[in-house]
Amino acid sequence: MDTIKVAVVGFGTIGSGVAKLLLTQGDRIARHAGCRLQLTRVVDPDVTRPRNVQLPDGMLTSDLSQVADDPEIKVVAQLIGGIEPDRSIMLRLLESGKDIVTANKALLAEHGAQVFNRARELGRSIAFEASVGGGIPIIAAIGQSLTANQIRSLRGILNGTSNFIVSKMEESGADYADAVREAQRLGFAEANPAMDVNGSDAAQKLAILAQLAFGARVRWQDIPRIGIDRLDPADLRYARELGYRIKLLASAQLVDDSLELHVSPTLVRVGRPLAEVREAFNAISVVGDAVGPVFFHGLGAGQMPTASAVVADMIDMVTGRTQITFRRLEMWSHRPSCVSMRDYAQLTARYYLRFSVEDRPSVLAQITGILGKHEISIASVIQHEPTNGEQGDIVPLVIMTHSASEGAADSALKEIDQLGCVRPPSVRMRVLDEANSGSA
Amino acid sequence: MDTIKVAVVGFGTIGSGVAKLLLTQGDRIARHAGCRLQLTRVVDPDVTRPRNVQLPDGMLTSDLSQVADDPEIKVVAQLIGGIEPDRSIMLRLLESGKDIVTANKALLAEHGAQVFNRARELGRSIAFEASVGGGIPIIAAIGQSLTANQIRSLRGILNGTSNFIVSKMEESGADYADAVREAQRLGFAEANPAMDVNGSDAAQKLAILAQLAFGARVRWQDIPRIGIDRLDPADLRYARELGYRIKLLASAQLVDDSLELHVSPTLVRVGRPLAEVREAFNAISVVGDAVGPVFFHGLGAGQMPTASAVVADMIDMVTGRTQITFRRLEMWSHRPSCVSMRDYAQLTARYYLRFSVEDRPSVLAQITGILGKHEISIASVIQHEPTNGEQGDIVPLVIMTHSASEGAADSALKEIDQLGCVRPPSVRMRVLDEANSGSA
Repeated sequence: MDTIKVAVVGFGTIGSGVAKLLLTQGDRIARHAGCRLQLTRVVDPDVTRPRNVQLPDGMLTSDLSQVADDPEIKVVAQLIGGIEPDRSIMLRLLESGKDIVTANKALLAEHGAQVFNRARELGRSIAFEASVGGGIPIIAAIGQSLTANQIRSLRGILNGTSNFIVSKMEESGADYADAVREAQRLGFAEANPAMDVNGSDAAQKLAILAQLAFGARVRWQDIPRIGIDRLDPADLRYARELGYRIKLLASAQLVDDSLELHVSPTLVRVGRPLAEVREAFNAISVVGDAVGPVFFHGLGAGQMPTASAVVADMIDMVTGRTQITFRRLEMWSHRPSCVSMRDYAQLTARYYLRFSVEDRPSVLAQITGILGKHEISIASVIQHEPTNGEQGDIVPLVIMTHSASEGAADSALKEIDQLGCVRPPSVRMRVLDEANSGSA
Repeated sequence: MDTIKVAVVGFGTIGSGVAKLLLTQGDRIARHAGCRLQLTRVVDPDVTRPRNVQLPDGMLTSDLSQVADDPEIKVVAQLIGGIEPDRSIMLRLLESGKDIVTANKALLAEHGAQVFNRARELGRSIAFEASVGGGIPIIAAIGQSLTANQIRSLRGILNGTSNFIVSKMEESGADYADAVREAQRLGFAEANPAMDVNGSDAAQKLAILAQLAFGARVRWQDIPRIGIDRLDPADLRYARELGYRIKLLASAQLVDDSLELHVSPTLVRVGRPLAEVREAFNAISVVGDAVGPVFFHGLGAGQMPTASAVVADMIDMVTGRTQITFRRLEMWSHRPSCVSMRDYAQLTARYYLRFSVEDRPSVLAQITGILGKHEISIASVIQHEPTNGEQGDIVPLVIMTHSASEGAADSALKEIDQLGCVRPPSVRMRVLDEANSGSA
């Protein structure tokens, strides 16, 4: 059986997991790859910090040229994270003739065009299953298994940190700050979780999926996004009362051949698969025009789930499957975008609205009057009596609307927030449209 | 762009769907395949019956040699079903140099060794994504995306007909016969649904997955199986009362390096993804040692979902990916089984038991005494008062046990059914083990 030399660049959590699989599961991997993957070098600036895997003497180095200049190393799992130096290293490794496996969604979302086009020019390939959904094989599913379909929509819980925090808030009634501390204590959130909780991480992953599924040339910064960092436990309670859970959804949907993209906390009806995703799990619901709805659920992060995706990509790379797929995907290629982006103000949705209002007559009439003026019709209303902790005569008023445009909803809420009887800011969240969500 | 000629053999429901995709979505398919797939011939004994796709004049023929003897046709989607003549036709097409895409789980489960080994000898490939789970890409997931893992367990709702019937019974309280008629009326069950409802179809699919995931050389007939054809609506009600739903699960699990395989109605806790699978949907939960639990859900049958999988396989075939994968899978190869089958009597599970007993003192003591003698300990008991429709003084006694072996449970129930106070046969069903089921 042939042997192919491989290397790992970046010896952090995921890099350690990949090294562990390569060193301890060599026979299993060889059986699937048809050749032995011999881990030859692990590169990291820090060669002293202990990791949870023991490398053979001399394998760990801080010198990238030991990989770049070794022509026998064909495949590199590059697992550094962040933008620089990861981008420069990836370009250098591609120039040196390596095929690359990466988990770096930030780099791809930011500089995918540069690294993919350079790889194509050089006849090299980049595999990136681990960049979205951790161990869930969503890249292979869309890029290979569902290719007979026009994907109609794609909705995902793509950020495990946010899902963990929201699940905690819902289960225990904790407020946002307490849930974040709990997530940090358990290792589900970093010391500074800003990119996770403000929707940026999910938007980066959505940008990659939108490239893959729709051929959309979209910058992740251009994807409208709302995070969970201002979520009030009260809204989780009211949503539950109405039969919904709130999830941070990344959503892409074709409407009249243009693409709606956004990341936002969204009410999903209890019992729908996406509503039942707990803790740090990820899930993606894809609707194709032939296959209908397909739903994927698994661990979206963590050492071994992500390493599972990285090593599968390494196997695919040495078998030659990745090279075939990479040439066909045309991700970030010079081919123009297959779809146009839909103007955010024109997107439509059903909305959950919560107003803090004075407890006196005519308030409901004033608010519903403004909604009506903006042609937003009302599906249901909940008004509760004041509870402890709510100040004076201020009560919550919760309204579920029928479908309305973002633009209309935005204008209506601005106007309502001007009313004397309303304490701004009011809360507005999307409700997942049952009709267009398949089984999600 | 190159053109590759392809053919469809078997112009039934799925064959029509495949023809429709090839004829109407040529550009989309060409983009993913890197060449045009030109549908050249459709073969079926019945060339007159109308289907829901219009073929160009002269394409439909009853003469298989128009495909077998045309050296320009490289890939054939063979969609006949059943054993013969499908097996003879597949062998003839392989001999004629065609690569084959099939959805025929019965043929693979029964004669996989013959057709796969012949394909390997001839340097040909067989793709079979559509044979299990319809449009759910479970074959690609296990055969390609999860190859860095040792699969620990695999549990699926693999028969949509059974799931539809059980869901109907649960939702409406209908009895089995009424639910079957409803399924037949809606096209979810055939006129004779025996293979679907008695667990055979699920066992055939499980045999294929066990080959793929565990390298198990198992005959589907040797997989212990219980269907849903004797399911009593009362058990669905009691299960619900205990917080469970009943699902026909196909299960494969490694225990101490030997493999437990069975198909049986199983109690799954409400809220677990497998419990929430409704109507004719399929779902599969896979647990890998690196990736942890991964869950897939989608339409397991039907014209276009299955055609989606078939056409994706045809695309994979013309790109060359299938050929790489097929060589590596070693399904039904001469390589000996990687695992041994665990003796059914030694399998352990928690059980749901229901006895019809006389409503008088000491009955519970007698029954629990026998269970205790067989070292089966009791987790919970429900005894209801007699309701209308239950005869005389006979009442149901429902017991949930802790873990016990099949052998012990079998012996205990035989003994209990001999008691004067018990009206046999008693009901016994497995309960899905939370600890070993991952997120399923």
